[in-house]
Amino acid sequence: MIVSKQLTLNTQGEGHTLDITSGVERAVREAGVKNGVVTLFVIGSTAALTTIEYEPGALADLKRAFEVIAPRDQEYQHHLRWHDDNGHSHVRAALLGPSLSVPFVGGQLTLGTWQQIILIDFDTRPRQRKVVAQIVGE
Amino acid sequence: MIVSKQLTLNTQGEGHTLDITSGVERAVREAGVKNGVVTLFVIGSTAALTTIEYEPGALADLKRAFEVIAPRDQEYQHHLRWHDDNGHSHVRAALLGPSLSVPFVGGQLTLGTWQQIILIDFDTRPRQRKVVAQIVGE
Amino acid sequence: MIVSKQLTLNTQGEGHTLDITSGVERAVREAGVKNGVVTLFVIGSTAALTTIEYEPGALADLKRAFEVIAPRDQEYQHHLRWHDDNGHSHVRAALLGPSLSVPFVGGQLTLGTWQQIILIDFDTRPRQRKVVAQIVGE
Repeated sequence: MIVSKQLTLNTQGEGHTLDITSGVERAVREAGVKNGVVTLFVIGSTAALTTIEYEPGALADLKRAFEVIAPRDQEYQHHLRWHDDNGHSHVRAALLGPSLSVPFVGGQLTLGTWQQIILIDFDTRPRQRKVVAQIVGE
Repeated sequence: MIVSKQLTLNTQGEGHTLDITSGVERAVREAGVKNGVVTLFVIGSTAALTTIEYEPGALADLKRAFEVIAPRDQEYQHHLRWHDDNGHSHVRAALLGPSLSVPFVGGQLTLGTWQQIILIDFDTRPRQRKVVAQIVGE
Repeated sequence: MIVSKQLTLNTQGEGHTLDITSGVERAVREAGVKNGVVTLFVIGSTAALTTIEYEPGALADLKRAFEVIAPRDQEYQHHLRWHDDNGHSHVRAALLGPSLSVPFVGGQLTLGTWQQIILIDFDTRPRQRKVVAQIVGE
């Protein structure tokens, strides 16, 4: 059984991070499927998904790591092409990745107590984001 | 057809890495499913999954890269919140990610000869870890 | 319903990046499945999958980030074991990861307009690569 859901989220960019766990839980509940996998996929090339303990300290620490990997204030080849300013956003999003697969058992996501599903928007401006939640189960 | 299995693993922390390939193979075999996907998901926010050639050199090299991204001996905002010492663990785990999806065909995982499935525990103390193996197939 | 497909790709190594989107679309189309998830998995421990805006600038920017994380011209423990030269390839591939799960709805992958599926070959020589496309759907 396959059920397609979609989450719509308003983000502020520059690493703005949303806890989307409750939205994913709702999608699974509404699908009426007990056991399976929800495949999450963020549409677009400047946002990404992962899990973290959702508290401001850990989010700030993660942001600092991305500054090491792909600093905000550095020139990017991507800018030369489009006169754009989000080269670091593309690099960070590609590294973290657009998809995350989360099992559920008895209708419950198999997350840890301190483990939340997050959407990070690396773009340089507010965006409306779509996250596909493709539910495969029985 | 959905079959839920779970692997339990004892880890030492600080990047301790376990080859969990044979455990995943066993889960797929016991499920009695021939073709499909096993979605692996580690419960908790300070461990992660990927594949690598499982030999001490490559593991040490990967650990060094994580020292570049999120050094062990650096102050973390996460510490200020919980008086904790595992800020680097959270950053590393979020970057690598908790989930991995591996196809299997004819009952065999589609891994390369030198490609093993690994669990890395980034936490700062020994833990007992649970990896969910959600098997979708026929 | 499970359908197994495989893409075969010739790569040049050292970060050579191929847009495999049309190959994945073809695999889904040939499978004749309308709604589901395609799990992509690259066989081998020196290549990886993600999505990006496929244009030379963004690809060069991503390559530079990998030079920060795991520089090409640095000694690696992996070399000591095998007298090999691809320690950086293993580290980069493990970090980015071998698998990617992409939903499809009405036969269409749920990608953004500027979001392509890429295979990056981090190895130091030309390779022939196999990407498994495991299609689960109805």
